[in-house]
Amino acid sequence: MFVYHHKVHYYETDRMGITHHSNYIRFMEEARVAFLDEIGASFARIEADGIVSPVMAVEGRYLHTTTFDDVIDVEVFIKEMSPLKLRIGYRMRVGETEVFEGMSLHCFLGKDGRPVRILERYPQFAPYVPAEEE
Amino acid sequence: MFVYHHKVHYYETDRMGITHHSNYIRFMEEARVAFLDEIGASFARIEADGIVSPVMAVEGRYLHTTTFDDVIDVEVFIKEMSPLKLRIGYRMRVGETEVFEGMSLHCFLGKDGRPVRILERYPQFAPYVPAEEE
Amino acid sequence: MFVYHHKVHYYETDRMGITHHSNYIRFMEEARVAFLDEIGASFARIEADGIVSPVMAVEGRYLHTTTFDDVIDVEVFIKEMSPLKLRIGYRMRVGETEVFEGMSLHCFLGKDGRPVRILERYPQFAPYVPAEEE
Amino acid sequence: MFVYHHKVHYYETDRMGITHHSNYIRFMEEARVAFLDEIGASFARIEADGIVSPVMAVEGRYLHTTTFDDVIDVEVFIKEMSPLKLRIGYRMRVGETEVFEGMSLHCFLGKDGRPVRILERYPQFAPYVPAEEE
Repeated sequence: MFVYHHKVHYYETDRMGITHHSNYIRFMEEARVAFLDEIGASFARIEADGIVSPVMAVEGRYLHTTTFDDVIDVEVFIKEMSPLKLRIGYRMRVGETEVFEGMSLHCFLGKDGRPVRILERYPQFAPYVPAEEE
Repeated sequence: MFVYHHKVHYYETDRMGITHHSNYIRFMEEARVAFLDEIGASFARIEADGIVSPVMAVEGRYLHTTTFDDVIDVEVFIKEMSPLKLRIGYRMRVGETEVFEGMSLHCFLGKDGRPVRILERYPQFAPYVPAEEE
Repeated sequence: MFVYHHKVHYYETDRMGITHHSNYIRFMEEARVAFLDEIGASFARIEADGIVSPVMAVEGRYLHTTTFDDVIDVEVFIKEMSPLKLRIGYRMRVGETEVFEGMSLHCFLGKDGRPVRILERYPQFAPYVPAEEE
Repeated sequence: MFVYHHKVHYYETDRMGITHHSNYIRFMEEARVAFLDEIGASFARIEADGIVSPVMAVEGRYLHTTTFDDVIDVEVFIKEMSPLKLRIGYRMRVGETEVFEGMSLHCFLGKDGRPVRILERYPQFAPYVPAEEE
């Protein structure tokens, strides 16, 4: 399981004294970038291939607050892969405490603006696709 | 229907040339703050009552990109109100184009950390609760 | 004197309970965008002309804290205009209280990457240039 | 010389394709936090002592653009220490290229809101104070 670490910055807190909820969407992106680097399908490579990969949807559930200086461990994994869509999952913990779980949904668009069949173009995803999709 | 307007700032764009997806979660908060002001249950008042109202979950679907200088019209409405939870919905448009739809889920916690029955404490929500919950 | 208004968002506060200091640099940009719109040299127009105008320097002094829901009035003015550089000044107030003063320094670069003589290209700045430069 | 590393996130870029200038003020804070941890005067400790340390001023000069995935090396050092004020300097590089230099000015306020004599309270700064102030 790939794990990314984010140490919460002071500017990411709000006046409730906790990490502002919008920042977890950014932590998801940070973790996704690191995961894609790891599996050989980095943003840089995808961009160089002339492909854009917009975010189609996000979801998040806040399970416990975090704050400045907390180190959040972010597990990243493929939840589901259809021919044209990729659903990535995230589980965040501080120590043993679950603090957040989320997902993001993505497609890949070629230069002509048409959807790309993801696994044909990026077979490096294959080993990470769960055997049975949810 | 309550509508809030957000003009996209330059610093809210990313190098794809579009509004970064994480910012829509912030636009939801901006619109929610304005809506709660409007109905007489402002953040300031809730804080003054010693109540904290954390975000429990968010969801968003990106329907069309937006960018710098676009004026986003954000419709805010109560999707569902249970005794202890409030689900707020958002529909965002630029002109006639739908660009985003989302929701946020909230509870209200008293000084003792226990959930507050929302409508008993803030009856000003009542006129905005849909007759038939989803 | 051109004045822009920014109402502080919840997500702009930090756990000291105040507007995070980095956000004032963003308020400067918001106010600059509105000022340039006003005088007919908008970002959109400058971009359409194939000119990029990077920020070369910023400075800010924090005079009083602000927080959520405060309305900051931002005065924007040209502090100094040399053939190749534009220095913009900012004074921010909440009611009668001065909260921040700052400046940003800009140049304009043509498609060839070479500096553009600003007043020759954008004479609409002329009425706003102070008679005696500081 | 203390050096902090920041890898630029996608959400920190803007539609010019570069790291938005406001984010360098945040990188300064990240680097300052790490530096104060290193010398034994962490934010957490200062807060626990009941002392607040607001930012009084910032300055930055942008020397070269950076973008997504760049690793910025941030040198942090004390530029000047007077009895009541601390001026911290920052030099940022990507590889051999200087990209930014900046400073931030700070005071320390006790629970009574009165300025604290910094070196008396936090002698751990002493070894880092330059012999001759600029």
